[in-house]
Amino acid sequence: MSFPRVGVIGAGQLARMMAVPANDLGIDFKVFAAIPNDSAAQVTHFVLGDYTDVNSVLAFAKNCDVLTFEHELVPQSVIKAVEAAGIKVYPKSESFTFSQDKLEMRKKVTELGLPNPNWQKYQGGKSEINFPLIAKLPAGGYDGRGVYVINSEEELIELHKKMGTLLLEEKLNFDYEISVMVARSPHNQAATWPATLTVQSNGICTSTITPVPDISEALSEKTQVAALEIAAGISLVGVMAVEMFIIGENFYINELALRPHNSGHWSIEGSLTSQFEQHLRAILDLPLGDTAMRNKFAVMGNVLGGPKSDMYRPYLHLMARTPGLKFHQYGKEVKPGRKIGHVTMCGENLLQLREEVAHAVDYMNGVIDE
Amino acid sequence: MSFPRVGVIGAGQLARMMAVPANDLGIDFKVFAAIPNDSAAQVTHFVLGDYTDVNSVLAFAKNCDVLTFEHELVPQSVIKAVEAAGIKVYPKSESFTFSQDKLEMRKKVTELGLPNPNWQKYQGGKSEINFPLIAKLPAGGYDGRGVYVINSEEELIELHKKMGTLLLEEKLNFDYEISVMVARSPHNQAATWPATLTVQSNGICTSTITPVPDISEALSEKTQVAALEIAAGISLVGVMAVEMFIIGENFYINELALRPHNSGHWSIEGSLTSQFEQHLRAILDLPLGDTAMRNKFAVMGNVLGGPKSDMYRPYLHLMARTPGLKFHQYGKEVKPGRKIGHVTMCGENLLQLREEVAHAVDYMNGVIDE
Repeated sequence: MSFPRVGVIGAGQLARMMAVPANDLGIDFKVFAAIPNDSAAQVTHFVLGDYTDVNSVLAFAKNCDVLTFEHELVPQSVIKAVEAAGIKVYPKSESFTFSQDKLEMRKKVTELGLPNPNWQKYQGGKSEINFPLIAKLPAGGYDGRGVYVINSEEELIELHKKMGTLLLEEKLNFDYEISVMVARSPHNQAATWPATLTVQSNGICTSTITPVPDISEALSEKTQVAALEIAAGISLVGVMAVEMFIIGENFYINELALRPHNSGHWSIEGSLTSQFEQHLRAILDLPLGDTAMRNKFAVMGNVLGGPKSDMYRPYLHLMARTPGLKFHQYGKEVKPGRKIGHVTMCGENLLQLREEVAHAVDYMNGVIDE
Repeated sequence: MSFPRVGVIGAGQLARMMAVPANDLGIDFKVFAAIPNDSAAQVTHFVLGDYTDVNSVLAFAKNCDVLTFEHELVPQSVIKAVEAAGIKVYPKSESFTFSQDKLEMRKKVTELGLPNPNWQKYQGGKSEINFPLIAKLPAGGYDGRGVYVINSEEELIELHKKMGTLLLEEKLNFDYEISVMVARSPHNQAATWPATLTVQSNGICTSTITPVPDISEALSEKTQVAALEIAAGISLVGVMAVEMFIIGENFYINELALRPHNSGHWSIEGSLTSQFEQHLRAILDLPLGDTAMRNKFAVMGNVLGGPKSDMYRPYLHLMARTPGLKFHQYGKEVKPGRKIGHVTMCGENLLQLREEVAHAVDYMNGVIDE
């Protein structure tokens, strides 16, 4: 048997969901977990270790044909050590930079001639961007962490004193936010899925609709072409989410995430090829799968921790009410605001899909009782 | 967290595929395997043991809220011991009889007023059924094993001497064979999927088409009603395949399998709720899922072991040729004629689906080289 061995650094829900197509494809799959109770370790084979420790990661990597990541926190030095040992790591360290460092990402998008919001690297002094503006830590932030709305020079100077170098961006009055998932293989084969509307609340994505309702065909195509250009421009191998702001018929690149992404979860049920299967195909340099949608619409809702600690009991009501709803539990302890699972529903009637998904999410996290 | 613990006796491909919805639903899932290299044990948590040993099974069952099976080989005495210990086991021993003992099944179908082929219990002497006839061992046979075409009294007497009591059935000149998958819960909620055409070769199912092409609406409904009647008649909890022969507008019950079944594999991609998820919902007494099809047609092809020992290399050609094809590997060593995986494709164009699935299967098992 010549099935390759794939190792994933990180054992959260993304690795957990990647285990499914890995098993279907017969791939030898294991995750590098911090503790046995990590989301993916609960359901698949794992090795315990610390992803910041070069030697532990190298020992894990030596039993893999390809290594990949499910989060942005792995130090560049660790990735480069694995590359130096002659083991395939995707995304490559040179690509990963654009996910880890938002200043590098802004430079690259500018270099590719794609639309950024106005931005600057800030190391003190007067800002070139008008207030209110967005200040970001160049590294380490996600789900709204490390992102600040700054209303005055005083606030900016204070933040800089605390945090050091910042990325400043103009605060766009956007109409809505979208994400375009894209996959690319070492053979340079690339594929996108239709753009996804991401509905945010306090910087956290609460639900998605695919494809973006009412987007013009021209704009939809432009955003997919941009995602493909960025993928090629950073030599991506694997899948990537390209988050964008939309104003009228214009788009602006917001963030890159070089991994399967929350905005692509709909693809498990909604697409012929899920982002997780596509990521595996890409890093193994297999031909990419068909990204066509199975239904007209796919709606995904994130289940965030709320007052209910029991996520099983809601099944009785929700499965009886909505027999077509699909549940994904991450096996995580319920904490307020934490992403502990998601639900997806696909079909033709967008209004109904949105209602059922919103109801399920509200019922699971305790906003409503019936 | 109140997620239930489900244990499966057996760790073949059915348990392997059941692990996916178990993880999605957040259920604590483990399999009782013979060896660590069993198909399901390769990809999920397992306990090693012998399913014919009451004490081992009881020790496993005591850490489960519900126990289930993925094959018919577990002795009734073992199932009854688990029931006597107060642990939920589905299907129940009283239902399981009809899967394990083909004579009991024939009696029950007759009692329910549903159409059997002519049959008799044979313990020697003259047969009431005309030759050629089908002789079956009452227990233990599947995939054509334990099934004999008998052309004369001499052959019959010889088989009886060797094998003991037989079930004799008239050899029907059927037009085609179908399977109706049905699920039923302790709450008596039941659901069927559309009937599936099963294409057989030497007693082994090689491919399926769902729904059965060109079947009349009336016949399709009658077969689904019959499956529901049998499910209720044997107090089924879980999913069951009801295999039937079709002659014109008439159907005849062929076999029952009280578990997820090869003829239901199409439902993983083809239905809103797969047979594996539905089995879990049923045994946990959760509301059943929507069994609607995602596409007009779903075609499944079994990959049988052939001259090629490497099942990974074919991906390069097949994924490039057919980007919408879905692969399922069971992690089994390739042996001639052994079911080592399956492929599925869903869509609107039945001719194209059949061609692509047949090509993939032939390419994987080495019948064709390009």
